[in-house]
Amino acid sequence: MSIQIQAVNQSFHGQTILDNINLTIEPQKIYGLLGRNGAGKSTLLNIISNRIFATSGTVTLDEDSLVDNDHTLGRLYLMSEVNLYNERTKLTKLLDVTTRFYGDFDRDYATQLAAKFELDLNARFGKLSTGYRTIFKLIVALCVPADYIFLDEPVLGLDANHRELFYQELIETYSERPRTFVISTHLIEEIANLIEHVFVLDQHQITVNGSVPDILDRSYAITGPDADVRQYTTGLNIIGQDQLGGITAHYVYGALEDDRPIPDTVKIEHLDLQKLFVNLTNHQEVAHVN
Amino acid sequence: MSIQIQAVNQSFHGQTILDNINLTIEPQKIYGLLGRNGAGKSTLLNIISNRIFATSGTVTLDEDSLVDNDHTLGRLYLMSEVNLYNERTKLTKLLDVTTRFYGDFDRDYATQLAAKFELDLNARFGKLSTGYRTIFKLIVALCVPADYIFLDEPVLGLDANHRELFYQELIETYSERPRTFVISTHLIEEIANLIEHVFVLDQHQITVNGSVPDILDRSYAITGPDADVRQYTTGLNIIGQDQLGGITAHYVYGALEDDRPIPDTVKIEHLDLQKLFVNLTNHQEVAHVN
Repeated sequence: MSIQIQAVNQSFHGQTILDNINLTIEPQKIYGLLGRNGAGKSTLLNIISNRIFATSGTVTLDEDSLVDNDHTLGRLYLMSEVNLYNERTKLTKLLDVTTRFYGDFDRDYATQLAAKFELDLNARFGKLSTGYRTIFKLIVALCVPADYIFLDEPVLGLDANHRELFYQELIETYSERPRTFVISTHLIEEIANLIEHVFVLDQHQITVNGSVPDILDRSYAITGPDADVRQYTTGLNIIGQDQLGGITAHYVYGALEDDRPIPDTVKIEHLDLQKLFVNLTNHQEVAHVN
Repeated sequence: MSIQIQAVNQSFHGQTILDNINLTIEPQKIYGLLGRNGAGKSTLLNIISNRIFATSGTVTLDEDSLVDNDHTLGRLYLMSEVNLYNERTKLTKLLDVTTRFYGDFDRDYATQLAAKFELDLNARFGKLSTGYRTIFKLIVALCVPADYIFLDEPVLGLDANHRELFYQELIETYSERPRTFVISTHLIEEIANLIEHVFVLDQHQITVNGSVPDILDRSYAITGPDADVRQYTTGLNIIGQDQLGGITAHYVYGALEDDRPIPDTVKIEHLDLQKLFVNLTNHQEVAHVN
């Protein structure tokens, strides 16, 4: 019972976009798919949901292929940044079409959500601002009866109040009807408490694949006078650094050496998820460390 | 020496979009213009930069009108969410045009920024992702020689690393050549340390206009057992609340009453800027308080 992504590769005009991606996406779990602009996140989501074909590799749901398989594809839904809707069509009409397509589309919940987000369903899609286009697409994604929902940039253009409302609604609808959400977003700190498991896609490869508590447990900021910090972190997996005056911070991902004495001048703290991500994926800076 | 916005009103099809806006924008200062989706922020920025006309009111720069005045308009630049560029034109070509238009356009800095953001200037504008379109527009905005730069949604679609890089570059370019920036963004916490002064545009009116330290100084979270909190906050300007179990938080904007005893069970802290904004502009929730 899961989505299996096996040895998926994608290239375009000789450039690698995805390099040997292997992932398991389990039922009823909330995932974060994190990656920088251009890392390949949207391509991966499009391949999983059969909108584009992988150059090689397979994607299966409960061991059935997802390529051109209407039965299994109906169990997946991708909310993407691309606007697939006709600009001149009214939102109520778009909901009618979606309801006809998905028998169990939760129209009542869609109406409730539109009221909470103050979205006028009589508006035409093309008349909506960036934020309200996102809101409409979010509402559809939360109301389709699929078991696996992929949200690509679900808060693009949303104000702080609407983002909070979306996070609350996600938690509520998930607890009422548990299903899988895979959230791809650049606002990492805001979803850090929502997601159970993280995939980091960096330079076309999966570089982190683990539970959020496990990952944060292995993420450290080691701060103090430059020489003391350098001495303590020698040989550790340093992913980044900051300097201010004579004080240095080294960011480490991975185990510390327990038997190494910690100088009194050095402070060890855990990193938050966004800071970890920024350092893991900031390749220009890592070159300067040590 | 400043931009004066006086009694500006805007309505469209009988609907009020801006209601009697009066603001002063001083030279060499960094402002935040905060507002919810649909509050009228983009309309205000378009009026200031003469892209659209106000229904009534005036906008002047050093006492000269900005309406159709090429001399004063050249001192202003608006980076907006709307894409004004031809999709098929290469970025280098777009920079050429901008350089020809603004004699003092800082082409060297633009090239440096493109390298830092890893933006390929040989790409065509239409081929860029949302994030990279924003990056290109940001680069232009940071390199034009204007004295007043308005940034409407400057981090839309940017990943966490690129957002950090932009904030750093903004501070550096500002300290090298002080000028005014007015930043309109939904990522309030990320700019809270950058901006000196805040305008909040709420339901078409300016409801907050003050320095960031002053505003945060007047913003409180009062937390404790429900009855004790209610007793302490009676008569204060409560802008929102949260409840969890028997614990209540009331959010207050404005002075506390110094001679009122604080119950031992009640904790008073300051709010951060985003939390203050969310509560100030969350009209649905305020109705439930007390």
